[in-house]
Amino acid sequence: MFKKTMRTYLECIPCFMKQAIEMARLVTGNEIVHKKIVDEVAKMIPEFSLGASPPAMARRIHQVMEKHIGRIDFYKDIKRKSNERALELYPRLKDKVDRSVNRLLTAVEIAIAGNVIDYAVKNTLNIEHEIDKIFREDFSEIGKTAFAFEAFQEDWGRAETVLYLADNAGEVVFDRVLIEECPPDKKVFYAVRGKAVINDALVEDAEFCGIGDRAQIITSGVDAPGTILKYCAREFVDLFNRADLVISKGQGNYEALSDITRKVYFLFRAKCPVIAAHANVPLGDVVLLKG
Amino acid sequence: MFKKTMRTYLECIPCFMKQAIEMARLVTGNEIVHKKIVDEVAKMIPEFSLGASPPAMARRIHQVMEKHIGRIDFYKDIKRKSNERALELYPRLKDKVDRSVNRLLTAVEIAIAGNVIDYAVKNTLNIEHEIDKIFREDFSEIGKTAFAFEAFQEDWGRAETVLYLADNAGEVVFDRVLIEECPPDKKVFYAVRGKAVINDALVEDAEFCGIGDRAQIITSGVDAPGTILKYCAREFVDLFNRADLVISKGQGNYEALSDITRKVYFLFRAKCPVIAAHANVPLGDVVLLKG
Repeated sequence: MFKKTMRTYLECIPCFMKQAIEMARLVTGNEIVHKKIVDEVAKMIPEFSLGASPPAMARRIHQVMEKHIGRIDFYKDIKRKSNERALELYPRLKDKVDRSVNRLLTAVEIAIAGNVIDYAVKNTLNIEHEIDKIFREDFSEIGKTAFAFEAFQEDWGRAETVLYLADNAGEVVFDRVLIEECPPDKKVFYAVRGKAVINDALVEDAEFCGIGDRAQIITSGVDAPGTILKYCAREFVDLFNRADLVISKGQGNYEALSDITRKVYFLFRAKCPVIAAHANVPLGDVVLLKG
Repeated sequence: MFKKTMRTYLECIPCFMKQAIEMARLVTGNEIVHKKIVDEVAKMIPEFSLGASPPAMARRIHQVMEKHIGRIDFYKDIKRKSNERALELYPRLKDKVDRSVNRLLTAVEIAIAGNVIDYAVKNTLNIEHEIDKIFREDFSEIGKTAFAFEAFQEDWGRAETVLYLADNAGEVVFDRVLIEECPPDKKVFYAVRGKAVINDALVEDAEFCGIGDRAQIITSGVDAPGTILKYCAREFVDLFNRADLVISKGQGNYEALSDITRKVYFLFRAKCPVIAAHANVPLGDVVLLKG
């Protein structure tokens, strides 16, 4: 068990800056606005405690953006494209599960593979390329230093209520493949963010990707790119505490929840060196961490 | 002719931050000092005009480091290793020139190849690997979108006084190979920085690398990672103005001098996307730009 808080590391700060610049450019070509946003983010840095998790800082950056540009869904077009492209792949993903020896294992691997669709990490991500790469990858050959599949399989079998914490748009289709492996007697909740933040999935993305056919789509209410419980809706926190199984997708949710006391399974691709070091896995690993 | 000022772009700001973090870590493991430096750099950002060149910002960052840690030669050990490794390669570099069809062309290509030894760009540069790569590279296959060799050859042949602006330690050995192609009747000045800044060459590096046998080693007096004339010594500026040929090595000198009115030949490897865009060449290109 690791249970150590994922604080913000110094390396995260230049990364936040890059993200703010990219976001500003997505919505305006006005360089004066870009510089204003960078200046405001710079001003926040001395006040920001490294004891907080990276999504907490990202949340504040979104607040700065809101102040200067308005609450905009910066990645709306990008998210739509990710959803569409991922949906095109859906039949092939299902086929992959159908042909596999262990359906659940393959579905878990697919769900984690979908986590490459992450604009918080690669700023100029070529989503087409990344998704296509998933089909060229042999999952058995990707590093799995922390891959608690047996424990997961056991808890998955026993759980009556499953809470699945979504990460990015597009990725929802990959989550759907895993969720559809759930026997029909289990109740599944699929929780998305409460407000637009980077390319994270919202209710509209979950609905568009068809996850509503199997899971109840809910929102955590959070306005950060990670499930920071203190910023979540009370009803969500209640559900988080009482669900038999919590599946947390993506690095942002891991950053926000790594020190939580309840059992959570973290599924993500270790794309950031700071997170990989915190989770004690090599960069690029497929991670299924029992936390 | 381009003659447009290389201003600081927004992308440079996260890059400055990364560099400050790396430098702080080179000399102390004290996280409180690291954070203090990042905070101070962050505070400077709103005050810093993007109209200034990137080395001007880097200069101010070094001033912040000096305030918190003292004026330290952060990269001293790294520079020493670069010098030693490059000197080991010297006989092979000379051999490459001896076997070539066009000695001057090969010497120019070698000098530019040496520009990969740059800690301002790749923060975790593996110098051994980068230097070894030079020998695996076929210069004729590397992009040369801007490679004004004919004009350079002509001016090189005519010049009586050559001023060569150094860039990084280690790289000096590669510069030496080019300088040694200069007929003995020409006077060559090799100008290094006035103070330690990143891994840029100082007088001791130039001497260690044996460039003093052919060129007179001088200092520009500048304390920035680029020859910003307003921070240079007056005698240096006089020489800069009256030399028949000025050869400027590296991205930092290009950033500082790209809008200068006198003729300068800029030799560098385009390693940074912002600089590549400014010089209108693809990333990775070998550049010999007549400015």
